[in-house]
Amino acid sequence: MTENNAVNVAVVGATGAVGEKIIEILEKKNLPIRELKLLSSSRSAGKKLIYKSQEITVEEAKPESFDNIDIALFSAGGSISKKFAPEAVKRGAVVVDNTSAFRMDETVPLVVPEVNETDLQSHNGIIANPNCSTIQMVAALKPLQEAFGLSRVIVSTYQAVSGAGNEANQELEEQTKQYLNNEEMKAELLPVKGDEKHFPIAFNALPQIDVFQENGYTFEEMKMINETKKILHAQDLPVAATCVRLPFFTSHAESVYVDVEKDGLNVEDLWNVLESAEGVTLQDNPATQTYPTPLSAQNKDDVFVGRIRKDLDNDHGFHLWVVSDNLVKGAALNTIQIAERLIENKWL
Amino acid sequence: MTENNAVNVAVVGATGAVGEKIIEILEKKNLPIRELKLLSSSRSAGKKLIYKSQEITVEEAKPESFDNIDIALFSAGGSISKKFAPEAVKRGAVVVDNTSAFRMDETVPLVVPEVNETDLQSHNGIIANPNCSTIQMVAALKPLQEAFGLSRVIVSTYQAVSGAGNEANQELEEQTKQYLNNEEMKAELLPVKGDEKHFPIAFNALPQIDVFQENGYTFEEMKMINETKKILHAQDLPVAATCVRLPFFTSHAESVYVDVEKDGLNVEDLWNVLESAEGVTLQDNPATQTYPTPLSAQNKDDVFVGRIRKDLDNDHGFHLWVVSDNLVKGAALNTIQIAERLIENKWL
Repeated sequence: MTENNAVNVAVVGATGAVGEKIIEILEKKNLPIRELKLLSSSRSAGKKLIYKSQEITVEEAKPESFDNIDIALFSAGGSISKKFAPEAVKRGAVVVDNTSAFRMDETVPLVVPEVNETDLQSHNGIIANPNCSTIQMVAALKPLQEAFGLSRVIVSTYQAVSGAGNEANQELEEQTKQYLNNEEMKAELLPVKGDEKHFPIAFNALPQIDVFQENGYTFEEMKMINETKKILHAQDLPVAATCVRLPFFTSHAESVYVDVEKDGLNVEDLWNVLESAEGVTLQDNPATQTYPTPLSAQNKDDVFVGRIRKDLDNDHGFHLWVVSDNLVKGAALNTIQIAERLIENKWL
Repeated sequence: MTENNAVNVAVVGATGAVGEKIIEILEKKNLPIRELKLLSSSRSAGKKLIYKSQEITVEEAKPESFDNIDIALFSAGGSISKKFAPEAVKRGAVVVDNTSAFRMDETVPLVVPEVNETDLQSHNGIIANPNCSTIQMVAALKPLQEAFGLSRVIVSTYQAVSGAGNEANQELEEQTKQYLNNEEMKAELLPVKGDEKHFPIAFNALPQIDVFQENGYTFEEMKMINETKKILHAQDLPVAATCVRLPFFTSHAESVYVDVEKDGLNVEDLWNVLESAEGVTLQDNPATQTYPTPLSAQNKDDVFVGRIRKDLDNDHGFHLWVVSDNLVKGAALNTIQIAERLIENKWL
């Protein structure tokens, strides 16, 4: 790529769990970045971060911060995105937003590049990065949808605490120490910051991620249901989700059950399709106890799939076990991949 | 109950995780026990345990140990049950076996008293206690099956390490300390003692419980599938299972998806049925963040059900979140309840 393609990039929420990961991945990538601007709330402004051996001072995000910015990567929470994304767009930037603020907006593309890259073309300045648990599932489902058709998806998730930010990691670590010291565990954050009740996550499982909706589902479950349909362009595909937070720091795992449309498939047919799927790595061999786990997927780029089994009672039913680093492909990497495709395709 | 009903009880595997829990629960129950004999392998023989303030020396299990025993509660592994259960029966004892040794034997009743008590009548000396993850699921499913009919069950489990015994608890605790001290985690036991590979369970999730079968399913998954059909007397009910081990000590949780036969049901209909179900406690109110967790179910007798939701895309589909202490209702308590029903009904 020539210098003419070079872009000015802003990272909003640079000191958060996803922001840190974005900077880490940008260092390894060959994006033609002319200037990298790191933005945050006033609370974290002034902090100094290192990018390619260069010290960058984090600045407080203001509307003017986006002057001369070509691409702004947002991951500072929905309210910040709602406030500043339009300001960035007004100043000529393209926003890749990692919050839920714009995902279900019909005018905003919701993109996993391996799955629906061409949806990027129709953007109006804002592109939404899907929810972490959605990204890894659709990466595994899309090749199956194309090859065999899908008629039903039922998922139960096993999600890491880092999805709730660095504070949640600290809470897990502290509660774990308290438990091992026979002290009472202090629960002040999870399942949801700002929600009324808090429960220990250490040595526990919390069947609540994000706040409850009127219909009894959590917002995380509704994100998985609605975003999956939007990304797969399949409004009529039944998608059912149960989302559970678990005591590990990184990577989400998912027990995904699908009904395929095609008759008479077997596990090998699914292996063949997933083996050649972009961004997917098959780790599936019962004979050698080969399957992905949250720890094995940590800091890796791909979506890992294992434990593929055919339902013993249903010719169309298959189980998959899908694992990916929620901060990498589930957030920072996918955000950066969207930016890469925008630049490469000249869709800015 | 009069002294005439008094029975001599043997506990085989008295020093194991389930054996300890059996003694603990027997202390609280009013079973008419004349003599309690505690048996184990030669390795643990000689150990002294306390039962109702009385010291009992653990003896090595031998065929003659079962002379004059009326009820023998086995939880020392399948090979011990296969070796000694027939010896106990030969000597006139009724065996309640907590291993998988006899569960799928057509001549052996597989019983959760609230679900299929009357199956006990046809015993030939051996009664099998179902797998922990099966017990809690069928306790929640049976009332729904009776009220509405079931046409499909899909379950993903969240299982505690204590299901793999006291050693597994120690492994989780030690790995947790190693991780927090930035030391390498030593994995020597889980997922399966004696299997070739071992992976850390601390801050991780292992999608393997028990050994793999030829068909790619784990034995734990096959237990859930086959036992559920046997207990519910529903050989044609499609049951699909994915079983996952997680880093908590006690209680299994399950994300259970069911298709009911009856049309037009809503969440309230399921609440009404489960509210009056024996052995089941409903904990389900999104407005107050009320749902069961592994920690909240610990040391409790009941099967707790929450997060009941109707599938937004399928009139017959419902989600349930089912949690119970795997050592209590999932093992020791159910074993003792079987013994109670045998005595009360004079079915010994």
